[in-house]
Amino acid sequence: MKNNKDRAGLVTTISGMLAKENINLVSMREHVDTVADRFFARIEVDNCADTRTIEEKLYDVLPADATVKLNPSPEKKIIVMVTREHHCLADILIRNQFKTLGASVQCVIGNHATLQNICERFEIPFYLVSHKEKDRSTFEAELLEIINGYDIDFLVLAKFMRILSPGFITKFPLRIINIHHSFLPAFIGANPYRQAYERGVKLIGATAHFVTNELDEGPIITQQIIPVNHSFTAEDMMKSGKEIETAVLAKALQLVFDDRVFVHQNKTVVFE
Amino acid sequence: MKNNKDRAGLVTTISGMLAKENINLVSMREHVDTVADRFFARIEVDNCADTRTIEEKLYDVLPADATVKLNPSPEKKIIVMVTREHHCLADILIRNQFKTLGASVQCVIGNHATLQNICERFEIPFYLVSHKEKDRSTFEAELLEIINGYDIDFLVLAKFMRILSPGFITKFPLRIINIHHSFLPAFIGANPYRQAYERGVKLIGATAHFVTNELDEGPIITQQIIPVNHSFTAEDMMKSGKEIETAVLAKALQLVFDDRVFVHQNKTVVFE
Amino acid sequence: MKNNKDRAGLVTTISGMLAKENINLVSMREHVDTVADRFFARIEVDNCADTRTIEEKLYDVLPADATVKLNPSPEKKIIVMVTREHHCLADILIRNQFKTLGASVQCVIGNHATLQNICERFEIPFYLVSHKEKDRSTFEAELLEIINGYDIDFLVLAKFMRILSPGFITKFPLRIINIHHSFLPAFIGANPYRQAYERGVKLIGATAHFVTNELDEGPIITQQIIPVNHSFTAEDMMKSGKEIETAVLAKALQLVFDDRVFVHQNKTVVFE
Amino acid sequence: MKNNKDRAGLVTTISGMLAKENINLVSMREHVDTVADRFFARIEVDNCADTRTIEEKLYDVLPADATVKLNPSPEKKIIVMVTREHHCLADILIRNQFKTLGASVQCVIGNHATLQNICERFEIPFYLVSHKEKDRSTFEAELLEIINGYDIDFLVLAKFMRILSPGFITKFPLRIINIHHSFLPAFIGANPYRQAYERGVKLIGATAHFVTNELDEGPIITQQIIPVNHSFTAEDMMKSGKEIETAVLAKALQLVFDDRVFVHQNKTVVFE
Repeated sequence: MKNNKDRAGLVTTISGMLAKENINLVSMREHVDTVADRFFARIEVDNCADTRTIEEKLYDVLPADATVKLNPSPEKKIIVMVTREHHCLADILIRNQFKTLGASVQCVIGNHATLQNICERFEIPFYLVSHKEKDRSTFEAELLEIINGYDIDFLVLAKFMRILSPGFITKFPLRIINIHHSFLPAFIGANPYRQAYERGVKLIGATAHFVTNELDEGPIITQQIIPVNHSFTAEDMMKSGKEIETAVLAKALQLVFDDRVFVHQNKTVVFE
Repeated sequence: MKNNKDRAGLVTTISGMLAKENINLVSMREHVDTVADRFFARIEVDNCADTRTIEEKLYDVLPADATVKLNPSPEKKIIVMVTREHHCLADILIRNQFKTLGASVQCVIGNHATLQNICERFEIPFYLVSHKEKDRSTFEAELLEIINGYDIDFLVLAKFMRILSPGFITKFPLRIINIHHSFLPAFIGANPYRQAYERGVKLIGATAHFVTNELDEGPIITQQIIPVNHSFTAEDMMKSGKEIETAVLAKALQLVFDDRVFVHQNKTVVFE
Repeated sequence: MKNNKDRAGLVTTISGMLAKENINLVSMREHVDTVADRFFARIEVDNCADTRTIEEKLYDVLPADATVKLNPSPEKKIIVMVTREHHCLADILIRNQFKTLGASVQCVIGNHATLQNICERFEIPFYLVSHKEKDRSTFEAELLEIINGYDIDFLVLAKFMRILSPGFITKFPLRIINIHHSFLPAFIGANPYRQAYERGVKLIGATAHFVTNELDEGPIITQQIIPVNHSFTAEDMMKSGKEIETAVLAKALQLVFDDRVFVHQNKTVVFE
Repeated sequence: MKNNKDRAGLVTTISGMLAKENINLVSMREHVDTVADRFFARIEVDNCADTRTIEEKLYDVLPADATVKLNPSPEKKIIVMVTREHHCLADILIRNQFKTLGASVQCVIGNHATLQNICERFEIPFYLVSHKEKDRSTFEAELLEIINGYDIDFLVLAKFMRILSPGFITKFPLRIINIHHSFLPAFIGANPYRQAYERGVKLIGATAHFVTNELDEGPIITQQIIPVNHSFTAEDMMKSGKEIETAVLAKALQLVFDDRVFVHQNKTVVFE
C-alpha cells in the first residue's frame, strides 16, 4: 500500500471480487495503520462454498505482500496448560462443555496434579508433566511429545507458571495465549499482586497476550482492571485478581477464536 | 438494499467511485442493520476539493433511497440552552475557548440569569428568556426569535429544565441534543436522583440523546454510569451525577460534531 | 437512636463491651441512615468463643429495637433453583467445588432437566420439578417439599424463570436472592434484552436483589453494566448479558455469604 | 497499637471521649493496617466548637505516637502550577469559580505564558516564571518567592512539566499533588502516551499522587483508566488521556480537600 488512495482501491478490489463471485457480505471491518503502512480487513461472508478458489482469487488481485487467511472451519482446537490455580481452567472447561468457547479443548497439561480432578469431571484428558528434578529442555520435550499428539490451533496458558524457552515458543508463533496477572506493562515478572500491594495502587488488572520470546512483552489482546483500595491485603488483591484474570482470558479467547485479532509486529488489531 | 450481496456491491460502488476520482480514503466504517435492512457508511477522505460534484456522483451511483451527507466545513455552529446548573455549560465554554469542542458556540440562552456571568467571562452572548408569567408558546416564540438570528447546526440543552413543545422540536429535527440526568430508560421524568435514592440503586448514570417529541425517548447517543452505595444521600447522588452528566454530554457532542452519529428511526449508529 | 450524639454512644457501647470481654476487633464498619434514623454496624472479631453470651450482652446494652446477628458458622447452606440457562449455575458449582463460594450447595432444583448433567458432574443432587400441567400452588408445594428436606440459609434463583407466589416468598424473608437480566429499574419484566435492543441503549446491565412480593422490586444488592453499541443484535446483547449476569450474581453471593449486606425497608447497606 | 484487642480500645477511647463532650458524630471510618501495625480513623462531627481543647483531649487519651489532625476551617488554600496544557487548570478554575472545589485558588504559576489568559478571565493572579536560561536552583528560588507570599495548604501540579528538586519538594511534605499522565507504575517518565502506543496497550490511565523525591513514586491518591484500541494514534491517546487526567485530578483534589486521604509511608488510606 503506497499511499492513501490505494486504500480505496483495496476496498474496491476486495469487495468487487466478492460481489462478482456472488458472495454475500455479512460484515466488513478495515483498519489502516498509517505508521506501519499496513491495511487490515476482516470480512465475514455467509455463502462461500469454495474457500480455496476464493483465497487464490484474492491473492491474484491483492498486492504481493498481502496475507490472506480464510477460515472455513470455525471451531478451533486447543490445549490448555495449567499449574495449580483452577479459576481460568474451570471457566474454559465450562464454556467447552456448553459449546460457548468457540473452540474445542483437546486436553489439559499440568505441571502439578491439582487440576486433574476437574478435568476428569468433564472427561477431558489430563496429562501430568512435572518440571521437578529435570532441566527445562527435558521438561519441554515431554510437553511437546504430548502436544504433538494433537492437531491444535492454539496453546492456552491458563495460569501456567513456568517460563517457556525461546525454542519452545518458536514452534508456535502467535499461537500461544497467556493470561498475565497484572495490567502490563506494570508489574512485569513475579508476584505482581505483592508488587501492586507494596506500591499502593488503586487499580489492579490483568492482560491476555500472545507469547513471544520477550517475557510478558508479546502483543496484547485485551486488558481489564478493577478498583482496589487500602483495605485490600496482597491476598485480597490476588483474590480479586483471579476474577479479572478469568474474565480477561475468556474475552481474549472469544476474540481470537472468532478470528477478530490480527497481529502486526508487536501489536494487535482487534475488530470487536 | 435488497439482500446481503448488495452490500458488497455498495462497498464496491462507493470505494470504486472514490478511487476513480483519485480521492484519498482516510477511514471507512460500515454497518448493516439487517433488521431495518439499512446500510450505513462513514467515509473520511483527505483531498476532496469539490464536494458538490462528489455528492452528485454518489447520488448517481447509489440506490434511490440513499441519503448522502457531505461535510465540507467541519466546525459546527451551536446554541447552548441552560437553566441554573453550570457544570455542563462551563465545560462546553472551556472547550469552545480552547478550540477542542469541534463546534463554535454562537450564544447561550438561559431561562434564569444565573449563568450570565460565566458567559461574559468568555465573551459569549447570553440571552435571558424567562419562562415566568407567560405561556409556553410565548416563551418558545421568544426563544425562536433569538435562535433564528443565528445560522446554527445544533441546539444543545445543557441542563435546560423546561419541556419544549412538539411544535418547537419539529423545527429542529435531530438537531437538538439533551443531557438527561439518569441512565435512561430508568427514572424517566422529574427528580431522577431522588427516584434512584428511593430505589436504592447501586449505579447512577446519565444519557445524552437527540430530542424528539416523546419525553426522554429520543435516540440515545451515549450513556455512562458511576457506582454509588448506601452512604450516598440523594444530594450526594446529584453531586456525583453532575460529574457524569458533564462527561456524557461532552462525549456525545464530540461524536456528533465529528459526524460519527447516524440516526435511523429511534436508534443511533455511532462510529467511534 | 434519637440523635447524632447517640451514635458516638452506640460506638462506645459496642466497642467498650468488646474490649471489656477481651474480644479482638478485626474490622468495624458503621453506617448511619439519617433519613431512616437507623445505625448499622458490622463487626468482625477473631476470638469470640462464646457467641451466645456476647449476643445477650449486646442486647443488654443496646436500645430495645436493635437487631443483633452473630455468625458463628461462616459457611452458609444454599439451594440453587434454575431453569435452562447454565451460566450462573455453572459458576456457582465451580466455586462450590473449589470452596470459594462461601457457602455449600445442598442441591439444585430445576423446572427443566437441562442442567441435571452439570450437577451430576459435581455430585450435587438435582431435582426436576416441572411446572407443566399443574397450577402454581401444586408446583410450589412440590418445590417446598424438597426445600424443607434441607436446612438452608438462602435460596438462590440462578436464572429461574418462573414467578413465585407471595405465599412462597413469605416463607423465606430476605433469604431468596435473584439475578435479574437488566439494570433495574430499567426493563422490568419479560425480555429485557429485546427491550434494550428496541430502545437502542448503549449500556446493558444486570441486578442481583433479594426477592420480595413486588416483581423485580426487592432490595438491590449489586449491579454492573457493560457497554453495547449499534452492532449488537438482541441476541448479542443477551450473550454479553450472560457474562455480566454471572459476574453480578457471583459478587452478590460473595457479599451476602460474607455477612456484608444489611437490609432496611427496601434498600441494602453493603459493607464492601 | 500492640494487638487487635487494642483496636476495640482505641475505638472506645475516641468515641467515648466524644460522647462525653456531647459532640455529635456524623460519620466515623476506621482502617487497621495489620502489616504496618497502624490504626487510622476519620471522624466527622457537626458541633465541635472548641477544636483546640478536643485535640488536646485526644492526645491525652491516645497512645504517644498518635497523630491527630483537626480541621476547623474546611476550605483549603492552594496554588496551581502549570506549563502549557489547559485542561486540568481550566477544570480547577471552573470549580473554584462555582465554589465546588473545596479549596480556594490563591494564584497560578506557569513556566509559559500560555495559560495567563484563562486565569485573567477568572481574576486569578497568574505569575510567569520561565525556566529558560537559568539553572534549576534559580528557577525554584523564583517559584518559592511567589509561593512564600501566600499562606497555602497545597501546591497542585496541574500538568507542570518541570521536575522539582528534592530541596524544593522537602519544603512541602505531602502537600504537593501531581497528576501523572499514565497508569503508574506503567510508563514512568517522559512521553507515556508514546510509550503506551508503542506497547500496544488496550487501556490508558492517569494517576494523581503526592510528590516525593522519587520520580513518579509518591503515594497514589487515585487512578482511573479508559479503553483504547488499535485505531488510536499516540495523539488520540494523548487526547483521550487529557479527559481522564482532568477527571482523576479533580477526584483526587476532592478527596484531599475533604480530608479523606491519610498517608503512611508510601501508601494512602482513602476514606471515600
